[in-house]
Amino acid sequence: MELRQDFMDVGISLYWSTIIVYRLPWTWKCSKLLMKFIHAGLNTIAMILAIVSMVAVFDYHNARNIPNMYSLHSWIGLAAVIFYALQLFFGFAVFLLPFAPVPLRAALLPIHVYSGLTIFATVIATALMGITEKLIFSLKNPAYSTSPPEAVFVNCLGLLLIVFGALVLWMASRAHWKRPPEENAKVLLPVGGTPEGTEEESTMTDGNNADKSDLRINSEVARKQNLKLDEAGQRSTM
Amino acid sequence: MELRQDFMDVGISLYWSTIIVYRLPWTWKCSKLLMKFIHAGLNTIAMILAIVSMVAVFDYHNARNIPNMYSLHSWIGLAAVIFYALQLFFGFAVFLLPFAPVPLRAALLPIHVYSGLTIFATVIATALMGITEKLIFSLKNPAYSTSPPEAVFVNCLGLLLIVFGALVLWMASRAHWKRPPEENAKVLLPVGGTPEGTEEESTMTDGNNADKSDLRINSEVARKQNLKLDEAGQRSTM
Repeated sequence: MELRQDFMDVGISLYWSTIIVYRLPWTWKCSKLLMKFIHAGLNTIAMILAIVSMVAVFDYHNARNIPNMYSLHSWIGLAAVIFYALQLFFGFAVFLLPFAPVPLRAALLPIHVYSGLTIFATVIATALMGITEKLIFSLKNPAYSTSPPEAVFVNCLGLLLIVFGALVLWMASRAHWKRPPEENAKVLLPVGGTPEGTEEESTMTDGNNADKSDLRINSEVARKQNLKLDEAGQRSTM
Repeated sequence: MELRQDFMDVGISLYWSTIIVYRLPWTWKCSKLLMKFIHAGLNTIAMILAIVSMVAVFDYHNARNIPNMYSLHSWIGLAAVIFYALQLFFGFAVFLLPFAPVPLRAALLPIHVYSGLTIFATVIATALMGITEKLIFSLKNPAYSTSPPEAVFVNCLGLLLIVFGALVLWMASRAHWKRPPEENAKVLLPVGGTPEGTEEESTMTDGNNADKSDLRINSEVARKQNLKLDEAGQRSTM
């Protein structure tokens, strides 16, 4: 029981670290491929821990003759793990393997980011429901409703879980913590950018913030125009 | 009891409608001020319903000698209502009253959007915890753990609540559902836009999508550059 909880906790910690792994400015000088390997690797470990802890849950329930999968916590938790597995599979197939064309990657990246964050929020909600269940079932004498110290302590942990989730969502949604785009913007249509590539890269890493944001705005425009072109191309082939 | 639940439900429905009220393309021809009044008005009604339902909870608990504010559900729910009240107050003071300068509005808008969505996600998590508690406490014979039809039905409602929250977050975070910027981008530094204003407005509403997104990209660049200027200005006065 405690084992399953620990595994789930480590899984959640890994999951949040994979979300913000691109958002740390000191990693922007590392290659995109290396960061992708770290992101995919941490997510794979988190997925393995989630599966191990789910197996432990079923074993624990079976050993104590507790029915499986009856609670809303279990339904939403299982749904989150299934969507997490899909996210991992499609992320691997589209963004890590070298087969998907750049326009497809560009079109799927916002969906990948959105589903990653939505699954993360769902996992937090699942943890809060699990904590609620555990407090009701385990605190009997004194009961949860009499607010013993354990209840107050775990309620505080639950509040911190919300604060933690809110901080991760903040970090993941700030434009200025977004890793500056590199190859995609360069390979396709650089509007106002430097098509040669090397200069842009060197400006990216020299620590001049004003230059960085200028480049980022231009790359953003280029990216949007590329996306528009891709959309148009897809439409014309349909 | 049922009354409090109904009020909370209507409150959540109003809250989500206020989140997506700017995201409906057919409202983009309405004036920004009208939309702000609708947004603020719906949020005020939702806030009143939340307060009424909280008073009903305390009355219900007191009448049945159930302790107040012991559960994680109640802690997180109260925190959400407090932050919702702050959000309403600051939204009113900064965005509706005519006193706040444009740079301050521009700087606070991303925070307003972020906290609105985070509070919304927290409210969904609170509802799921409340549903979990209610199912455990109310289903006794047959117990929740034996999965009677009511349990399955309410679990399905809980899953739908997650789907609903995910859809609202999707609508609120898509760039192409964002209301195109008007006055701010025009008043300040229009890069490639039409500084006269009327032309831009007429292009916005004539239904030509390509023109619209071009304009939006340009306005976006103008807005970012303005923000940068504002930041610089603030820094120089510090």
